[in-house]
Amino acid sequence: MTGEGNHDAMGGRGARQGASTQVDVVIIGAGSAGLAAVREVKKKTDSFVLINERPYGTTCARVGCMPSKALIEAANAYHARHRADAFGIRGSAGLSIDTAAVLQRVRALRDRFVAGVLKATESLGKQSIEGRARLTGPNTVEVHDQVFAAQRIIIATGSHPIVLDQWRKLGDRILTTDTFFEQETLPASMAVIGLGPLGVEMAQALARLGVKVHAFSDSDQLAGISDPAVSACLRAALSEELTLTTGHEVQLSATRDGVRVQAGPIDLEVEKVLVAIGRKPNLEDIGLSALGVKLNQRGLPPFDPTTMQIRDLPIFIAGDANAYRSVLHEAADEGFIAGVNAVSDEVACFERRTPLAVVFSSPGVAMIGQRHADLEPGQFITGCVDFSSQGRALTAQRDEGILRVYAARDGGPILGAEMCAPAAEHLAHLIALAIHRGLTAADLLAMPFYHPVLEEGLRTALREIARESQFDYSDLAACEGYQLEALD
Amino acid sequence: MTGEGNHDAMGGRGARQGASTQVDVVIIGAGSAGLAAVREVKKKTDSFVLINERPYGTTCARVGCMPSKALIEAANAYHARHRADAFGIRGSAGLSIDTAAVLQRVRALRDRFVAGVLKATESLGKQSIEGRARLTGPNTVEVHDQVFAAQRIIIATGSHPIVLDQWRKLGDRILTTDTFFEQETLPASMAVIGLGPLGVEMAQALARLGVKVHAFSDSDQLAGISDPAVSACLRAALSEELTLTTGHEVQLSATRDGVRVQAGPIDLEVEKVLVAIGRKPNLEDIGLSALGVKLNQRGLPPFDPTTMQIRDLPIFIAGDANAYRSVLHEAADEGFIAGVNAVSDEVACFERRTPLAVVFSSPGVAMIGQRHADLEPGQFITGCVDFSSQGRALTAQRDEGILRVYAARDGGPILGAEMCAPAAEHLAHLIALAIHRGLTAADLLAMPFYHPVLEEGLRTALREIARESQFDYSDLAACEGYQLEALD
Repeated sequence: MTGEGNHDAMGGRGARQGASTQVDVVIIGAGSAGLAAVREVKKKTDSFVLINERPYGTTCARVGCMPSKALIEAANAYHARHRADAFGIRGSAGLSIDTAAVLQRVRALRDRFVAGVLKATESLGKQSIEGRARLTGPNTVEVHDQVFAAQRIIIATGSHPIVLDQWRKLGDRILTTDTFFEQETLPASMAVIGLGPLGVEMAQALARLGVKVHAFSDSDQLAGISDPAVSACLRAALSEELTLTTGHEVQLSATRDGVRVQAGPIDLEVEKVLVAIGRKPNLEDIGLSALGVKLNQRGLPPFDPTTMQIRDLPIFIAGDANAYRSVLHEAADEGFIAGVNAVSDEVACFERRTPLAVVFSSPGVAMIGQRHADLEPGQFITGCVDFSSQGRALTAQRDEGILRVYAARDGGPILGAEMCAPAAEHLAHLIALAIHRGLTAADLLAMPFYHPVLEEGLRTALREIARESQFDYSDLAACEGYQLEALD
Repeated sequence: MTGEGNHDAMGGRGARQGASTQVDVVIIGAGSAGLAAVREVKKKTDSFVLINERPYGTTCARVGCMPSKALIEAANAYHARHRADAFGIRGSAGLSIDTAAVLQRVRALRDRFVAGVLKATESLGKQSIEGRARLTGPNTVEVHDQVFAAQRIIIATGSHPIVLDQWRKLGDRILTTDTFFEQETLPASMAVIGLGPLGVEMAQALARLGVKVHAFSDSDQLAGISDPAVSACLRAALSEELTLTTGHEVQLSATRDGVRVQAGPIDLEVEKVLVAIGRKPNLEDIGLSALGVKLNQRGLPPFDPTTMQIRDLPIFIAGDANAYRSVLHEAADEGFIAGVNAVSDEVACFERRTPLAVVFSSPGVAMIGQRHADLEPGQFITGCVDFSSQGRALTAQRDEGILRVYAARDGGPILGAEMCAPAAEHLAHLIALAIHRGLTAADLLAMPFYHPVLEEGLRTALREIARESQFDYSDLAACEGYQLEALD
């Protein structure tokens, strides 16, 4: 604490223009990163303010992770009718989907999740200020006619969906996740542009909810997957439910009632377009120029991802605002690091977590640790399993997908994995723990694998690695150093 | 290898009665344990025979894990219609279940799984002998009119469902898993007797397939759960779908068309009864008396579970036959250990795996590591999560269940966990790896948890442990030994 400022951080609100209020910390942005930062700051000082421009409620709860998952679960529940007959269930042809009800449920759940995160902001009372913050120097922040002089500043302003300027004239025929969940019903046809994690999730969910979906990407990469075999698996799965056009730039133009979409050989008309080509940090009007640091081509300041500090300034940048790892659990970590460092005498660095990305498609996609594309060919071993003949997958009609695990040669640690597989989100966490702890395939093979479970598929991949490692191993540890031959 | 016997192990088949054929190893039983043993024996010697009394195909594939899971998946798929309306799916009242088709699918899958394991036996050719084996001494086995003199013998004769003698007169109104899957259709009403893992799985699946199910157990324990809070959770879930009567002995008697069931205050009639009160090792006629070892009250010989050896005899006992850990992955381990030791000069001991049990109910049940009942009160910390308010669970309408994790005091390792929770089988493997590696709650909290996933529920329980451990911890490791306060 500075000890100089008013103990009521808001004491300056009524002060005449030009006077500044001293605070220990200003946090800009009440999203997941900002709120995580507030939690740490509060442990050390009451002298802080949280400034946020509407809307409140976090990207995750409001327009991100949560509503999308609620939509996907409804879509998957409806899609399950295609497996009904094989299970012995009759009458599924009589099922229909009430998309208005689907969207109402999504909003009801969203409101519940948003209400949860709003509590964190509301509990701050006057220390929570609504408005657009602007840096005027490395220690000063303006909001409305107030100026805060801060020991430290945390920028956690989040991001917004990118929409190309030339597409804006299409008005409400162009949707992003900011507007999609407010729709009352779904159109008969949609184009989804962008096939990163979000585009893939939304395209498949919309198709499963009865929308005729055409999905486009200027890249051939799907859902961020870098392993060609895994990508091919997802492409095949998606192609059963929607049309995919990748590797071509997309042109959009208005028709009488909809949107004309042109991409390479494709020329078609849809009612609406969901744009999912990425998100851009909310930094444009925040006053970074006042900091005297050179921004990169994307307009981002240099920062250290282990401290979140911008250069040697008393300023930290966390969450989507820094465009480093734009997923919730990393944003929360970054808010934590920024918050801890904003109230510490010395800036501490933290180890970042094992990379983990999950895409909630069916089959699910997950990437853990080092990506296939980042590994040196010939310097690693791949273990694979195809779930099309995996026992448990067959009993559940989930017999689609592959998992590929990469390990260092000669019995070294597991380095990474990519999959398009049933229960991907669960298998991903098991693999993430293994990588985080530096385990080898042989280490993992010593754990119990119940029967019949999808984790046995992971074991199949691990056994392939163990065999190729040409190291003696056994699933079971010997008490007395007994050497075993490779277990088949 | 003995070097003495005929290289064709079956050379003695045509020999006159009384002469014996020398072999290195006789394996009795072609189930999961026996086949795992064969795999190890084959690596060292061709001088062995596998003797098995019909049926072939392993308990797991034929009447156990696999057909039950196929049934459960169909039951769950049909049961999902109760969540349909809330998801926005209309018309689910028109769904019906074709139980004949359900059972046909179960048998078709079973036949596929059985065909898979049969290959292992068929590949042995003449070394595979059909018939009932009988020990006549620690080194001799008779089958039909043949005698094998063996260096080592492996008993892996499996088990059979227990049916009380007085119930046998009810004929085909009494079913066990040996006969259930052969039914053409399901009756309108059934009693399930016994509420261990199998009884719970089958009772719930039958109820979900439209059978009016009354479930009984003379014990109050459900599915092997020892934690009262977890047990109460399962009891509540089951009670929504079937009637439960526990803590009373069951009397069965024939009525004109069905079976009268009396248990404590209950007196009712059902069409059929599924008996699931446990399995008994197939040891009664195998000639254990010829070994000169004292059997326990249950008729089981003493053996070392780290070597599978019976006393100091050249005999090993593996799988359900020893009634030690009657689940497939342990049977396979035991067959492996027995097989390795049967062809080794010295008997080696192996560490057994972290205990892991999964029950495929909804919510799923799992028990990992030390059981709650085995822990000393006051000597451990419990972390808990209730999935009724867990984010991902809510999006999927899987918001039912609890998970309880037990850890040593003062930041010590995770000792065990019991749960009745969504994705139990997956959470169980993550916890099993943690326990197997001796990890603490703080260790596990350092791994990435994606958002939104059910694994975040586990994190909630782990954070409770970390807080109660009164140890400073952070989800994130500091690079430079930075000490953090407990993260909320």
